[in-house]
Amino acid sequence: MPLKRIADSTVRRLSLYLRFLEEFENAGLTTVSSEELAARGGTTSAQVRKDLSFFGSFGKRGLGYQVGELTQRMRRILGLERDWRVVIIGVGKIGAALAQYEGFRQRGFRVVGLYDSDSAKIGREMYDLYVRSVDALADDNREQPVDIAVIAVPAPAAQRVVDQVVAAGITGIMSFAPIQLHVPSDVTLNTVNMAMELERLSYALSNRE
Amino acid sequence: MPLKRIADSTVRRLSLYLRFLEEFENAGLTTVSSEELAARGGTTSAQVRKDLSFFGSFGKRGLGYQVGELTQRMRRILGLERDWRVVIIGVGKIGAALAQYEGFRQRGFRVVGLYDSDSAKIGREMYDLYVRSVDALADDNREQPVDIAVIAVPAPAAQRVVDQVVAAGITGIMSFAPIQLHVPSDVTLNTVNMAMELERLSYALSNRE
Repeated sequence: MPLKRIADSTVRRLSLYLRFLEEFENAGLTTVSSEELAARGGTTSAQVRKDLSFFGSFGKRGLGYQVGELTQRMRRILGLERDWRVVIIGVGKIGAALAQYEGFRQRGFRVVGLYDSDSAKIGREMYDLYVRSVDALADDNREQPVDIAVIAVPAPAAQRVVDQVVAAGITGIMSFAPIQLHVPSDVTLNTVNMAMELERLSYALSNRE
Repeated sequence: MPLKRIADSTVRRLSLYLRFLEEFENAGLTTVSSEELAARGGTTSAQVRKDLSFFGSFGKRGLGYQVGELTQRMRRILGLERDWRVVIIGVGKIGAALAQYEGFRQRGFRVVGLYDSDSAKIGREMYDLYVRSVDALADDNREQPVDIAVIAVPAPAAQRVVDQVVAAGITGIMSFAPIQLHVPSDVTLNTVNMAMELERLSYALSNRE
């Protein structure tokens, strides 16, 4: 069921709600109110109700939400009820840090391949995987399709690598390269820009009361 | 001048507009319309005008925005007209990747210190800095105040390290630890959660038309 377009900021809050719900579940709670979710996440109960209303009616008035049911529906909404096959392209420091990041595996993001274009790195074993040449990506993807390619190469190489990923038929891309990348409309691209994350902070620090 | 509270998603778009404006500036353009900014960033001209209206009137109707003036005001708004002294705490893979990240320096985020609690790492030279013990943070900050501490330690250690950062008197924190951290209200904390970034993508991939 395709949903109406939901703002990126809403999706971020849903991810956060899921984490809180899992905490509540681990603590043995069976119901939770929008007020409790709001208090945990530094937002308002009206915001919580509005965010959840995008996905149809969940809670019962006065009784709050069923933690188990809401957790499960939140996982489904975020696409976390399945495993995602992820490859990391570029095994420099950021790529290597991502390859061993426990938080990915916990969420069902399974790193199944590492790629690089540096012949000194190709063939090296890292975290039970052998680094492969980016040139092998298309063949590999034909044999065992990949859902998401994480781009962790230097900015000047990023567009060329993205073009190879797209040509290989991979339609989900997360990029850490600090440049604007271009992909066809049937490919979904998310960019994480570390400098922009710091700018959110410099903005907040500059405009503190 | 403190501004009214602006949504996080707006600040992210301002960061993006700044990047586009700098591209336009480098390309020798002197004026730009909200339509051109919108086209560059995959948003609408109405959204661009609304985002910029938070900060008072910029453009002249029919003439567009002055690229140089808008760039400068955007830098001021985002707190980028000054240098920020940054320390990185935790020099594992993520910390090391951030320490050498060129995008930070370009934006005036100057990494002036590296810290770790692992005695095997303390004293080691990395990128022209000597890794220091976290225990030295309070004294170091008294001598040469730091604006922002970047937390790149494993999740189980993160709250303890944040408490040390706060006790040292540092009031801006960016955390890469995948857990919820608690800080006093006069400390500004931003969290970058890699798994949440991937969830934005799994959400988008699951709800594609």
